[in-house]
Amino acid sequence: MPVSVAVIGGSGYTGAELLRLLHGHPEVEVAAVCAQRNAGARLDQVFPQFAGVSDATLEAFDAEAVASRAEVAFTGLPHGQSASAVAALRAAGAMVIDLSADFRLRDAEVYRSWYGSGAEHPAAELLGEAVYGLPERYRDAIREAGLVACPGCYPTSAILAAAPLLAAGVIEPSGLVVDAKSGVSGAGRGATRTTHFAEVGEGVRAYKLAGLHRHTPEMEQELSAARGGAVSLTFTPHLVPMSRGILTCVYARPGDPGRPAADYGEVLQAAYRDEPFVTVLGNDALPDTSHVRGSNRAQVAVRVDERAGLVIAIAAIDNLVKGAAGQAVQCLNLSRGWEETTGLERVALFP
Amino acid sequence: MPVSVAVIGGSGYTGAELLRLLHGHPEVEVAAVCAQRNAGARLDQVFPQFAGVSDATLEAFDAEAVASRAEVAFTGLPHGQSASAVAALRAAGAMVIDLSADFRLRDAEVYRSWYGSGAEHPAAELLGEAVYGLPERYRDAIREAGLVACPGCYPTSAILAAAPLLAAGVIEPSGLVVDAKSGVSGAGRGATRTTHFAEVGEGVRAYKLAGLHRHTPEMEQELSAARGGAVSLTFTPHLVPMSRGILTCVYARPGDPGRPAADYGEVLQAAYRDEPFVTVLGNDALPDTSHVRGSNRAQVAVRVDERAGLVIAIAAIDNLVKGAAGQAVQCLNLSRGWEETTGLERVALFP
Amino acid sequence: MPVSVAVIGGSGYTGAELLRLLHGHPEVEVAAVCAQRNAGARLDQVFPQFAGVSDATLEAFDAEAVASRAEVAFTGLPHGQSASAVAALRAAGAMVIDLSADFRLRDAEVYRSWYGSGAEHPAAELLGEAVYGLPERYRDAIREAGLVACPGCYPTSAILAAAPLLAAGVIEPSGLVVDAKSGVSGAGRGATRTTHFAEVGEGVRAYKLAGLHRHTPEMEQELSAARGGAVSLTFTPHLVPMSRGILTCVYARPGDPGRPAADYGEVLQAAYRDEPFVTVLGNDALPDTSHVRGSNRAQVAVRVDERAGLVIAIAAIDNLVKGAAGQAVQCLNLSRGWEETTGLERVALFP
Amino acid sequence: MPVSVAVIGGSGYTGAELLRLLHGHPEVEVAAVCAQRNAGARLDQVFPQFAGVSDATLEAFDAEAVASRAEVAFTGLPHGQSASAVAALRAAGAMVIDLSADFRLRDAEVYRSWYGSGAEHPAAELLGEAVYGLPERYRDAIREAGLVACPGCYPTSAILAAAPLLAAGVIEPSGLVVDAKSGVSGAGRGATRTTHFAEVGEGVRAYKLAGLHRHTPEMEQELSAARGGAVSLTFTPHLVPMSRGILTCVYARPGDPGRPAADYGEVLQAAYRDEPFVTVLGNDALPDTSHVRGSNRAQVAVRVDERAGLVIAIAAIDNLVKGAAGQAVQCLNLSRGWEETTGLERVALFP
Repeated sequence: MPVSVAVIGGSGYTGAELLRLLHGHPEVEVAAVCAQRNAGARLDQVFPQFAGVSDATLEAFDAEAVASRAEVAFTGLPHGQSASAVAALRAAGAMVIDLSADFRLRDAEVYRSWYGSGAEHPAAELLGEAVYGLPERYRDAIREAGLVACPGCYPTSAILAAAPLLAAGVIEPSGLVVDAKSGVSGAGRGATRTTHFAEVGEGVRAYKLAGLHRHTPEMEQELSAARGGAVSLTFTPHLVPMSRGILTCVYARPGDPGRPAADYGEVLQAAYRDEPFVTVLGNDALPDTSHVRGSNRAQVAVRVDERAGLVIAIAAIDNLVKGAAGQAVQCLNLSRGWEETTGLERVALFP
Repeated sequence: MPVSVAVIGGSGYTGAELLRLLHGHPEVEVAAVCAQRNAGARLDQVFPQFAGVSDATLEAFDAEAVASRAEVAFTGLPHGQSASAVAALRAAGAMVIDLSADFRLRDAEVYRSWYGSGAEHPAAELLGEAVYGLPERYRDAIREAGLVACPGCYPTSAILAAAPLLAAGVIEPSGLVVDAKSGVSGAGRGATRTTHFAEVGEGVRAYKLAGLHRHTPEMEQELSAARGGAVSLTFTPHLVPMSRGILTCVYARPGDPGRPAADYGEVLQAAYRDEPFVTVLGNDALPDTSHVRGSNRAQVAVRVDERAGLVIAIAAIDNLVKGAAGQAVQCLNLSRGWEETTGLERVALFP
Repeated sequence: MPVSVAVIGGSGYTGAELLRLLHGHPEVEVAAVCAQRNAGARLDQVFPQFAGVSDATLEAFDAEAVASRAEVAFTGLPHGQSASAVAALRAAGAMVIDLSADFRLRDAEVYRSWYGSGAEHPAAELLGEAVYGLPERYRDAIREAGLVACPGCYPTSAILAAAPLLAAGVIEPSGLVVDAKSGVSGAGRGATRTTHFAEVGEGVRAYKLAGLHRHTPEMEQELSAARGGAVSLTFTPHLVPMSRGILTCVYARPGDPGRPAADYGEVLQAAYRDEPFVTVLGNDALPDTSHVRGSNRAQVAVRVDERAGLVIAIAAIDNLVKGAAGQAVQCLNLSRGWEETTGLERVALFP
Repeated sequence: MPVSVAVIGGSGYTGAELLRLLHGHPEVEVAAVCAQRNAGARLDQVFPQFAGVSDATLEAFDAEAVASRAEVAFTGLPHGQSASAVAALRAAGAMVIDLSADFRLRDAEVYRSWYGSGAEHPAAELLGEAVYGLPERYRDAIREAGLVACPGCYPTSAILAAAPLLAAGVIEPSGLVVDAKSGVSGAGRGATRTTHFAEVGEGVRAYKLAGLHRHTPEMEQELSAARGGAVSLTFTPHLVPMSRGILTCVYARPGDPGRPAADYGEVLQAAYRDEPFVTVLGNDALPDTSHVRGSNRAQVAVRVDERAGLVIAIAAIDNLVKGAAGQAVQCLNLSRGWEETTGLERVALFP
């Protein structure tokens, strides 16, 4: 018998991507799709790719009603709003996989300074039970969690690239450079000048760099946890003219300048040998977002520039899949004890 | 027990797309992938989206060897070459689903004048047993066929849009205009100036119009068959800066100028009511290639311009899926008696 | 001494394009740039391509103030609003080149039914003096005009392709098909879902077809004028994933089916022999929007499909240049008696 | 009387861009366009944007013939070949502005190890007279030079961003990270899988990183010269799905961690205050390749991340203009004593 799930936040790209993946998941039935603005509309009016596929109707969110019909709820509302919905759903008995930023940061003070505009965390009492939903780092805890906080898209890529190197102590933990390039879907479906085709087509630019982007403390938290000590970094996100995908380069100084280049690759190989969704590329290939589009797979690689004394770790993911909805489904699979790859075996769509 | 299949022509986009779809097909096992130029290479060296997914190696084509290991062979070689491979595979006992142009035209003379450069059809003796692989028109014949000739991408879109209207006699059969817009993957993976990013990005152009494109006689053959009488048309293909997708508008004069606009929509609705992969859009939506990307689904719609006295039928497909590999898998499903949608239930990847 | 001009509507793409072209115009000085929403902002805050190039500040529109500083005003406000601004500027003594739709249609009734939502034309008394600003059709009248109504972008392309053929009587005037493909800048700079990168990237779709688009009566008016008798057509605009450019195909039945194909090309050649901005391509090339990007040039060609009994005329323009701002500058040049190409000699930006 | 110039290498993107810029240059007449493969073809057959604009014919290269007709020759052949052509042209008396890599590196040994495949520099005797053609660094020497070696596109962007900071001693000279994102035209017009639309569309990837790209020693040479001491860096180029433009981020440690962030901006402001083509953006804007497309302008900015202890300098250029052809024309202007901006005043084409 399938497990009933609900998607809260069904009119954004992440919600639609969840519905795409859940549609092909053999163990799951979508019992409710909730949306704020579009309540009452048919799903295929909001996302025409569901025409002929689904006759779902979007409904207004009511925690009790959702919990009575769904065992698991995926929440993906704007930060602050998501926390309130999560609290209500937890109170009503649902297991929750949250895709917002509300439960990613363990420290309520850090949340307040980056997200709160001075206000307190709306549900700080739940921070203790939230598990960071990156299976490659917290697989066992995710299996037991009642609340999973799915990582941000940029942090997913940066952590997959750099965490094993920090954990192994082969790179220095200070002054890391995280230079990431994202597709436009990462900015959400809202219509703004920033997302206008003619504004972003045929161009590339950095934004919110030098400590301004909210994914910075999340990366530092998780890379510090991986290392077992403080990690500091600068994060430069870029917008590039594509719809999906993130490519991230992490630059670091080697811990031991004399270490052979091959060692770094071996660290990644060892870390990801048994991972179902992480491919470590060798010397003959480099990560490319085109090759993971629509897939939950991450591609990682590492290179050493001995002349300059720098290690470069690279990761490519689909921001909407491994960076959001796919990772959430991966956490669901862990949480239910299913095969971790269930419903996620698709090969990337290329070209 | 899964059915063993082979893919002949594994280093082109169509071959890779077949492998993507077959990878997720529950009844199928890929026993061999043959490629001309890349024999000996690992699949993921040629198509990096298979890194971590498949450890297949491309091999040189040998009909006997293939037939001994696979019950069904998908062939997708350049026209002329495909016919020879098909003949050898048929002789060796394999069922063949051919994605080339070699068996689409029923009349060897027509083939010779459009494809042959004056030479005879390389396997004209097989034309009689070939079935045109468009399930929406030839479902029953496909079930029994030993050789299926999958339609061209442009013809698939034009036929899905216009055939029901011609069959119902509600549009005039002469002077049809077929104006189609295709993504660049339709030009194949070969590196040419025509496919250079900087040449086709940020631009749109028509090519091989006015009776020069080889899909013209294929459209006429099948639309004539649908009508039960000669149909003539002009076909204008365009290249637009996207990787996948075809949007086709077919313009025709109404058979009866006084017929209410709603009637045309009803003709399409009736034709496709039970079709698993064709969605007829109503007055509130129009086909968009973005909404069928990666999916075997077609979206069709019809509009009537009473002022100008013209009917416009529109179809959107993914040229590599419903226009090629997905349709081939649909034919396989029919051929084996499986549920027609097996392995093809994916929701389109949008955005 | 340079002529002082003003640009009214400086925060849209057309206004910015005018400023780009006027910046390089040797006879012109921009005395005022007016914008509704952005009054008070520096131009380079609204359009960063002017950083380091211009220190202009956008100001609120005041007809008297503008007319006291500028001899010629370019107006490009939303329809309805533009008419009011034009009336005030004409009353204040300025020559006006209007880029809105308000004075393109000669018949106030037609305007009312397509643009008016039932209301009267806001300045119908000026319709008599307005000259349609397509130099290739109305060069002499433009020289004398106090009010020029610049054509719409789609009509410019359709008229350049088809008018000479209709004027020469070599194609039938009824049931024309105008199938056009436009870049996203044609939708304006407003942020809507329609213009979101992830919604329009990697996709193509038709919109407002079958007599719904407001450029339909404008095309019919001007093609009828060219022919000297009624012309009817259906118009299908498409949105394609590029920023600039329109490619338009016009399909028509030949007046005399036996006429040699070469004759149609000769009609175009004769019509455009002395035109500085229209290139007639021969048998070895076809129009491509990439090849006119940023240029005031139009490329046109004609092909005949004898099998289907159809003539296809094609035009490519940059919608923001020959389809708007460049054509306006061309009209300015005529109006002032300057060389028609002044400030417009730029070669297209390719790639 | 105009100065006669020749363009050697007229069938690549850089050659075409030179011809575009020279077409609008008031002091110049193009006396010859030479091409290797396309000799004999009309320019508009090779580059259709010149249809109706130029009736030039490409001719085979002959140094004597060129020098007899042109005072200045722009050479843009593949490295190695260009050196031979330059030597012949110099011997024949022409002033040469070379856009290849052959004379950028001052040290023939460095050239041999990065470009030579073990062979000697083909014209090492000319290295002494070659001046590096970056006016912002070598304006006076360019005025006197008989041979100008135009910088590479990536180095132009990295040097404009970082040289003033190194010259002022405000950043550390070791371990710099240069992370650059380029459009596809940078790969040239050759048809390869790397430039196929469907391979590079909707994706981003790094290539030739960690000391493999030939622009690395050029950056080090010039940044070391700016600093007056050795500078080491790692360079990571990326390919992004656009035709033109380079955005480069240079990451460095501050020389004095306590220095106020505003100081870095002031260093850039001071360096570029009188530069006609470099705009230093302040706190309210960041460089975007869209805003310099088609223009010889560079946008630069600097940010400081005090938390991470890093300075980030950013530059945006059009790789074909400031990164190649435009810079070459700027050098020509200097060489002839014309106003430095002659023929280069165009506003960027946006959108």
